Amino acid sequence: MNTEIVTIEEAAKFLKENDNYLILSHANPDGDTLGCAFSLCGALQRMGKRAKNICADPISSRFSFMKEAVKEQDFEPSVIVTVDVADKKLLGDFESVYGDKVALAVDHHVSHVNFAGKLLLEPDAAACCQTVYKLIKALGVEMDEKLAACIYTGIATDSGCFKYASVSPETHIITAELLKYDFGFDRINYLFFDMKTKERVALEERIFRSLEYYCDGKCAIVVLPKEALDSVDTEDGNGIASIPRQIDGVEVGVVIKEKKDGWKASIRTNSFADAQKICKQFGGGGHEKAAGCSFKNMTPEEIKEKLIPVIERELNK
Amino acid sequence: MNTEIVTIEEAAKFLKENDNYLILSHANPDGDTLGCAFSLCGALQRMGKRAKNICADPISSRFSFMKEAVKEQDFEPSVIVTVDVADKKLLGDFESVYGDKVALAVDHHVSHVNFAGKLLLEPDAAACCQTVYKLIKALGVEMDEKLAACIYTGIATDSGCFKYASVSPETHIITAELLKYDFGFDRINYLFFDMKTKERVALEERIFRSLEYYCDGKCAIVVLPKEALDSVDTEDGNGIASIPRQIDGVEVGVVIKEKKDGWKASIRTNSFADAQKICKQFGGGGHEKAAGCSFKNMTPEEIKEKLIPVIERELNK
Repeated sequence: MNTEIVTIEEAAKFLKENDNYLILSHANPDGDTLGCAFSLCGALQRMGKRAKNICADPISSRFSFMKEAVKEQDFEPSVIVTVDVADKKLLGDFESVYGDKVALAVDHHVSHVNFAGKLLLEPDAAACCQTVYKLIKALGVEMDEKLAACIYTGIATDSGCFKYASVSPETHIITAELLKYDFGFDRINYLFFDMKTKERVALEERIFRSLEYYCDGKCAIVVLPKEALDSVDTEDGNGIASIPRQIDGVEVGVVIKEKKDGWKASIRTNSFADAQKICKQFGGGGHEKAAGCSFKNMTPEEIKEKLIPVIERELNK
Repeated sequence: MNTEIVTIEEAAKFLKENDNYLILSHANPDGDTLGCAFSLCGALQRMGKRAKNICADPISSRFSFMKEAVKEQDFEPSVIVTVDVADKKLLGDFESVYGDKVALAVDHHVSHVNFAGKLLLEPDAAACCQTVYKLIKALGVEMDEKLAACIYTGIATDSGCFKYASVSPETHIITAELLKYDFGFDRINYLFFDMKTKERVALEERIFRSLEYYCDGKCAIVVLPKEALDSVDTEDGNGIASIPRQIDGVEVGVVIKEKKDGWKASIRTNSFADAQKICKQFGGGGHEKAAGCSFKNMTPEEIKEKLIPVIERELNK
């Protein structure tokens, strides 16, 4: 793919010169891709353009407030824009329809694989919404509560509410601008960071109850049979693999989940242990801090018996 | 007390003109009062002044990195400054020694009760560290990694990592300035927001296990016997009362804790129910969203039997 790399100003010029936009979010949509899509769609509409935004997967009701930023418009789109989409594969069911027809991709993933005619990429942005904020500004569209709510949600959810290393001074400067609009950011944060569903609470209880410490407390293991996970949706199941690692003193956190055809161990490490090295011993793979491996025809007890000596060796290396 | 209200500039002028400072944090110290004390002490030392900071209660090891911002100095202090102290009572054991000798109080509590000669109060600041940041700037002291780490910790911990309604554009603008210094803010956030001690995990398991829903899931009640709390320190016990209320659909969250001489119910409400009204029925008190009441010579079951009909009435009002 011959992709032209463009600046904020060049992307804005392109958007000013065209019309009839279809904005695509990635499949399994999160706050960032949706915040980008709804705010950019709303901004284009405020310029008098025709624009709509879609996603291959259903949008969780948590994000329904974002719909207020846009108006439903009926027209035949001719210019395709993707937001926060690192690879055309991530368009899900829309890949085959739109994957090779994207005029402009706006993204912040360093791993971006070119698929669009033009690419606006800011790999240092904590959220793609940071880039979309600047794009909307370059389009000359005035910010308002509804656009600000979408952009804030993207920035907050992608940065763990400003917790992660990806946050930069610019993240906070943009957020300061957004907070001039009265959209109830604290309610958004409550919804995404403090509120737990009853199903999530039940799952955490199950996780904590099953938690066992090994290797002088440096390893924590959780076993989750299938029925513990059947009752929770994807969003409630998010971040489970990180729970054991987040315990003080734990260097290696393991979650052993039952799958259709056996068990899968997700291993997370904190500072020095190599999760990939541990999983490689069992035919698995991943990264230094996050890796996984699968086991067939074994009980969780047998899996633990196999895993613990390998983890112990990695801890004592 | 005849307290003179001063501006940032006036407070800075006072600090420039004097020397030999003793900076006091409030008892049961948190990230904000300590961040203020260590950063202001370090800033005064960088100006060539003599300064030390103390607290009536022990400082958790989580905050030990703050000590790097200051040097130990041996001298007889003559000017007392308090930071983030809303009332001289909150000086703990130091109230009797220093309570009436405070030259300058720097605070952000709207409920501040005058006790100092001069008061620099910014009730709109999300953290007192926001005000101390501006004060240090007015003193002409250059920011550095060590001061920035203290100030960031105060702002992040007092604002729930930028989650709460108290956060303003200024909070984010100051944080953007701090993030120019490479002090590892993501590690600080991990320590204060993501990491849990083994004792805290055990306590949450206990809480989730004891959790019961009433009134069509609008009320959630937790019962914690004394021995469940004996093993956790104050920091691990923080925020327990809010856990049931943070569950989706729950309007009234109740934690019934065993005390030396009976049980105490802490009631938290979300949007419309009045916690104070519920607790008043049992001789307790508090605010609309957070209140408490005590019970003697009753079992938790008997307490629930008394509480639930009152909560039900409040929910159906």
